[in-house]
Parts: sequence; structure tokens; C-alpha cells
Amino acid sequence: MDDILVVGSIALDSVKTPEGESVDALGGSAVYFSLSARNFTPVSLVGVVGADFPEAHRKMLTGRGVDISGLKTAAGKTFRWVGKFGKDLDKAKTLDTQLNVFETFKPELGAAHRKASVLFLANIDPDLQWEVLAQMQKPRVVACDTMNFWIGLKLPALKELLSRVDVLFVNEEEAQKLAHTTNNVRAAHALAAMGPRVVVLKKGEHGTLLCAGGKVFPFPAFPVKTVKDPTGAGDTFAGGFMGSLAASGADVKDLGALKRAVAFGSVMASFNVSEFSTRRMETLSRAEVDERFAEYRELLALPDAAVPA
Amino acid sequence: MDDILVVGSIALDSVKTPEGESVDALGGSAVYFSLSARNFTPVSLVGVVGADFPEAHRKMLTGRGVDISGLKTAAGKTFRWVGKFGKDLDKAKTLDTQLNVFETFKPELGAAHRKASVLFLANIDPDLQWEVLAQMQKPRVVACDTMNFWIGLKLPALKELLSRVDVLFVNEEEAQKLAHTTNNVRAAHALAAMGPRVVVLKKGEHGTLLCAGGKVFPFPAFPVKTVKDPTGAGDTFAGGFMGSLAASGADVKDLGALKRAVAFGSVMASFNVSEFSTRRMETLSRAEVDERFAEYRELLALPDAAVPA
Repeated sequence: MDDILVVGSIALDSVKTPEGESVDALGGSAVYFSLSARNFTPVSLVGVVGADFPEAHRKMLTGRGVDISGLKTAAGKTFRWVGKFGKDLDKAKTLDTQLNVFETFKPELGAAHRKASVLFLANIDPDLQWEVLAQMQKPRVVACDTMNFWIGLKLPALKELLSRVDVLFVNEEEAQKLAHTTNNVRAAHALAAMGPRVVVLKKGEHGTLLCAGGKVFPFPAFPVKTVKDPTGAGDTFAGGFMGSLAASGADVKDLGALKRAVAFGSVMASFNVSEFSTRRMETLSRAEVDERFAEYRELLALPDAAVPA
Repeated sequence: MDDILVVGSIALDSVKTPEGESVDALGGSAVYFSLSARNFTPVSLVGVVGADFPEAHRKMLTGRGVDISGLKTAAGKTFRWVGKFGKDLDKAKTLDTQLNVFETFKPELGAAHRKASVLFLANIDPDLQWEVLAQMQKPRVVACDTMNFWIGLKLPALKELLSRVDVLFVNEEEAQKLAHTTNNVRAAHALAAMGPRVVVLKKGEHGTLLCAGGKVFPFPAFPVKTVKDPTGAGDTFAGGFMGSLAASGADVKDLGALKRAVAFGSVMASFNVSEFSTRRMETLSRAEVDERFAEYRELLALPDAAVPA
């Protein structure tokens, strides 16, 4: 079993959706990722918060087994994001972003964290992602996420990073922009050609394309009747994916392990969207995760082609 | 093995996509459906064409084993559709529709056709769908398709029809409109509550939700690198679905048979979009179909959850 180090944002989010709203609630890519991955394997989180960060969140994270010894408290306020989801719950509209202490964040890894086997570089400035990577001793698997913002602003740094990571998480819109095509299958192949052995193209409620070993494996999302808040779904997915992969100790060439990782990612995301903020992830048990994994597997199971020809 | 009767449109389509264009090419819901379903089981087509309908198309259909004894030739011109697909190939923009002989089409079934075991009512006026149904002797399975146009124009007739069919094919947009929700899972359940034992909610490149037995089964589309012309994908899908179901003789309560039908539908649609008009369907062999079915099944196969807890 491999442990995971995640470097990313810790935020206080205010989110409105057709199902309600949350104000200054716990969020951030590193938080969602950690609360998901910790169901599978030990996780250490590196990031920064301000002096206003509630002690209760630290306790909750520690209580869920997340190592927050790399969580730095800086003078100033915690990163804040204000967003809104429309009726189709498809894409967030950012209403306000206050970087606060995150603006001058320089990740410095402690000795123990440098030795982590699996590294997840959540969505931060590609230059910072690169700096983190440079501090690592010898990670077995390196994964990263990115966003449209960096594709527009820091393409060369991002491309250099892609040549160095094993697993890339990217959403549909970002993939199409990076690969200059509106065909997701082509986009996944094109991104794989930029370096990552594994490309995970996320399509939200429409599922995932996994590109590995020269093939594209399509998977649906776990069907969810009530989506209250899609915030963090992508990072929760990545947490389930990387957590399952790290826990199994499988190589990134192991297609079976990668497909299982997609399934666990889908399962984790389906739990996360059912409540606002990290609420559902805070109470989720491994037994519930395994039960839904079995359900997902059963939903997809296909009989063979025993149809009279 | 059950035979299928399909009643729907036969058209001459002119279609532009980013990959090229076709002019006055063979199309229509009943044609796409027939050329797909005939790979699994005998199919009879009922519809109308004008005096200008090329003899070559009749020969091609007959050559592929489609019974066109119910294809009526009326004085006037064949139904014509002119459409265009944008860069994302997502939704057709209708540029022109000339109903021509289709405007006064009154389907009259011959004695043999009334005895068909499986009936597919392709997308035509719900009143006509109802008239066809009334002429049938005792079909084992009745399926229908519809479109936005009829949802707006003939909702009461459509709803009455839904209370009488076993399988409803509907696309995402139509489902959301009919069920008054933007959540596809809820929409599928809501439509099932209107009568059909099976609801097949089609999402194009994003796959299918199958609602049956009180559950929603999500399936991805077969990944396709080059989409030349999406015209007819939905009817080709329905042809693969109904063809596979009819050939197996399975009951519409047989969840395994329904899932296999979704897989065959996805496979057929993936072939159809790779060429303009019906070109690919004209040359497709059952061996190619079975090969891709096996590939689809293999892509989706998930290992069990053997991850250390």
C-alpha cells in the first residue's frame, strides 16, 4: 500500500445551486481530494490557510485520518471562492475569487513528505506544481490536475509538466482546448501523446474517458437523482482514483487497476455531490464506498452476445 | 426469434458536417432502423416515397434483406430534409424540411405485417403511431421514438401512446422537456412512470441511460475517433437495440437482455456515424458487429474491488 501526498488549495467556499447554498464552507482541491483518498490509503495534505481558518476543520480532517502536518498557517485570510451553479448544474460560474494567503504560497515539503510514494498535484500554478515535483525524492506515481486558467496563461510550463507526470486529470473543456479538437476521444489520445501514460478525461454527469495503453475506455457516471452541489466532484473523483490505485500498489500500466480506479472515482464523486461542501465526505464510510462500487459494477455488467445470428 | 415491423420516414437527406456533405442521400428513421435491425432479425418496413425515389435504394434495401413490400409509392416527391451539424457535431440544425408525400401518409398494414411480433413506431405524428398500433394483431413488444416537435404539438396523443408502449426511445433534450427536470436520471424514472416498462434515454456521444425494473443503468457510447455524419445515429441505435431484443426472443423484463440490447445499439450507432448517410450500414456485416460488441464488453469489464481496505 502506497501513501499519497497532495498539494493544492484549501478554501472557504460560498456556493449557490438550485438546491440551496453554503457560505464560507470548507472546500479546496486538496481538501476534497484528501477526504476522498483517505478512504483507501494514508494521505498527507500540503497547503496554506489564513489565521481565520476554523479549528473545527483541522480537527475534522485529523479525525478522518488526514495528515495535516504540512498545512501552513500564514498571516492573512484563507483563500475564498464564490460560485454559482445554474439549473443544469453543469458548470460553475465564478462570482468572486480572493486568493488571500494562497497568492504567495510557496510549498515547502518536510522530510517525510518528500518520501511519499504517490504525489497528486492538484490544480495550482504549473510553476508551483513543478517546484513541488522537484522536491520529491522518488515518487512511484505522479498525477496532476489543471484548469483552463493555466492553459491560457502558462501553457509552456504546463506542457513541460505533462511530459513529466504519469497521470493527467483533465475535464472535457480543458482537454479540447489543450488538444485543439472537439472530439473527446481524439483529445484524450492527443494528451497522452504529450507525455502522461494515463489520461483521465472527466465529463461530469456524462462520465469519464480513460486513455491508457493506446486505448480509450469509456465509463458512465454513477447515476445520481439529487445533485445538491457539484463543487469538488472532480477532486473527489481524483481522490478515489488515486486512492484506489495507491492502495493496490498497482503499476500505471495495469489496465485492470486503472479501470477499477475510474469506478472508485465515479463512486466517490457521486457521494460528494449529494450534499453541500464536504459534508457527505465527512461521514462517508469505506463500507458505503464498497457497497456502491459493487452496485456500479453490477449496473455495468454485460451478458455475452448470445443472440442467434 | 421475432420479426420486426417498423413504420416511419423514408427520406432524401442533404447534410453538411465539418467532415463533408451529402446531397439527396438515402435517409429517414425507418431506413436507418431497418438497415441496423436486419443484422439481427427479419425486418419489414412500412412507409411512403415519391415517384422520384431511386430504384437503386429499393434494390439496396431488398439486397440487405429488408422487406419493402409495405413501401408505398405515391404521386409527388419523396420527403426531403436539409440539415447542418456544427463543429461539436452535437445537434443538427434543420435548414429545410419538405414533407412532400409524407404529408398525407396514412399507414395501412397488410395482413402479414399486422402479425409482426415486434413493432417499432419511428418518429412520426403520434396520431399516426396510434393508428398503426390499432391495426396490429397482437404484438409481443411495442416500441416508439418521438421528437421535440410532437412534445410541443401533440402532447396528449403522445402521453396516451406512452401508456401503451413497452419501450420508449427518447433523447436527452426530449426527456427533460417531457419530464420537466434537467436531471436525466429523474427524467428517465419520470418517463417510466408514464407507462413504458423500458425507457432508453439517448445522450449521443455521452451514451445512454436505460431505465428498467425501477433502476437506471448508465452506459457509455462506443468511443469513435472520427464522426463524419451523426444523422440517423438514434434510429440506428434503436435498430440494434430492438434487433438484438427481438432476435433473442427475450421478455422486456429481462434486464440482461436489455443491457445487451443497449450495447448492440451503441455498437450500431458507432458504425453509422463513421460515414455519411447509410453508406456504412450498407456494407456492415454481422461479424463486424459481433467483433465490436466483444470489444465494447471488454472495454467496460471491471475487475472486482480487491483493494486492501
